[in-house]
Amino acid sequence: MTYTLVLLRHGESEWNALNLFTGWVDVRLTDKGVAEGKRAGELLAEHGILPDIVYTSLLRRAISTANNALDACDRHWIPVVRDWRLNERHYGALQGKNKAEIKEQYGNDQFMLWRRSYDTPPPPIEVDSEYSQDGDPRYAGIEVPATECLKDVVARMVPYWEDTIANDVRGGKTVLVAAHGNSLRALVKHLENISDEEIAELNIPTGIPLKYELDENLRPIGPGVYLDPEAAAAGAAAVANQGGK
Amino acid sequence: MTYTLVLLRHGESEWNALNLFTGWVDVRLTDKGVAEGKRAGELLAEHGILPDIVYTSLLRRAISTANNALDACDRHWIPVVRDWRLNERHYGALQGKNKAEIKEQYGNDQFMLWRRSYDTPPPPIEVDSEYSQDGDPRYAGIEVPATECLKDVVARMVPYWEDTIANDVRGGKTVLVAAHGNSLRALVKHLENISDEEIAELNIPTGIPLKYELDENLRPIGPGVYLDPEAAAAGAAAVANQGGK
Repeated sequence: MTYTLVLLRHGESEWNALNLFTGWVDVRLTDKGVAEGKRAGELLAEHGILPDIVYTSLLRRAISTANNALDACDRHWIPVVRDWRLNERHYGALQGKNKAEIKEQYGNDQFMLWRRSYDTPPPPIEVDSEYSQDGDPRYAGIEVPATECLKDVVARMVPYWEDTIANDVRGGKTVLVAAHGNSLRALVKHLENISDEEIAELNIPTGIPLKYELDENLRPIGPGVYLDPEAAAAGAAAVANQGGK
Repeated sequence: MTYTLVLLRHGESEWNALNLFTGWVDVRLTDKGVAEGKRAGELLAEHGILPDIVYTSLLRRAISTANNALDACDRHWIPVVRDWRLNERHYGALQGKNKAEIKEQYGNDQFMLWRRSYDTPPPPIEVDSEYSQDGDPRYAGIEVPATECLKDVVARMVPYWEDTIANDVRGGKTVLVAAHGNSLRALVKHLENISDEEIAELNIPTGIPLKYELDENLRPIGPGVYLDPEAAAAGAAAVANQGGK
């Protein structure tokens, strides 16, 4: 018995297009991002991978991408679960800032430390920032972080995987997780047992389903497979090169 | 303590526009139908009625309308529950047939009997009809009806209301039910205690939120209120006059 898990990073958002750090700011998809979601659904249909349940973050760009993908593969009717623990990494004081400007201002080493180090979070967001999520009703009852490093995302994502998503996988369901660059990196780090150092090199492209076959212990049987490998390689390189002008 | 329930019939579908009986056939929204959903969300936001949870049928036109409305009122992140018991009435052998042609072929009395009588279902759909839902994976484990009258819809909708949706209402949640002309007529019949005869006169327009305040026994405090009463009156008249050419 093997299990199927599909990860999907949201399509291009308005702030991806503007090269801004986004984090928990709830921006919309661009037209390109909408098209990416539909294409993801077409890829699922072409490969006969039909989700039985979808998990999303609480952020519009992941929710819309899931809606667009599921509509395109005729699975719009499956059960939906949304949870903040699938949210993007909170980017702290960098939320709303331009990546190229931050790189220029702080230098490439600091820029890459904030972007890709495992345990160095950016400075915390100011309480009165227009990009703070304090008081947002969708986070009622949880303590909204002021900043997060990838280690923090692992600390919220992996228990949610183990306690919740994994149960559906073990139940034989094909599970789609529609989320974000860093929440998916956290999950892939766990699944593939990637070290704290090596995870810096992993970039997940937008809008291309990443399929895992898992064994009885929910360990991957071989590497994850992008349903459009060429587009995925180009997309991952583009993510790695962010910060350019 | 009073409770808030909002009912929303999906926006115009491709088959509404073509004047075809639709039932369980899973057609898409038209551009007008997409706009109706967004407008419904704007009306919710303008009135400060923000759903805490949404229930939808398993049909794309209700699911998309809910998605569009919730996105427009910034509640895209709320929990979602989907259930076949919110589906439109199954229209039996009439599914896919033109309303004007059926009216001409069978006469207005028979046409209205099938459309609006409480307990006369249309003839059952043929098993090999291209518009049958037999074998559709979304209905795995349930017996897909071959036809339904409104009484049949009441028999599946009201227990679902009582056992499931009503619990969220009693828990103080503002509940949005995004569904169909006849599943919502079944619910309104129950809530307002409308007789089997009088329900024939009730027409629910597409895309306009219908708000109920309910008392502790989940009985309406006053009539349901459309958030755009003028558009609702025009829309209800248009529904009543379907079957014209």
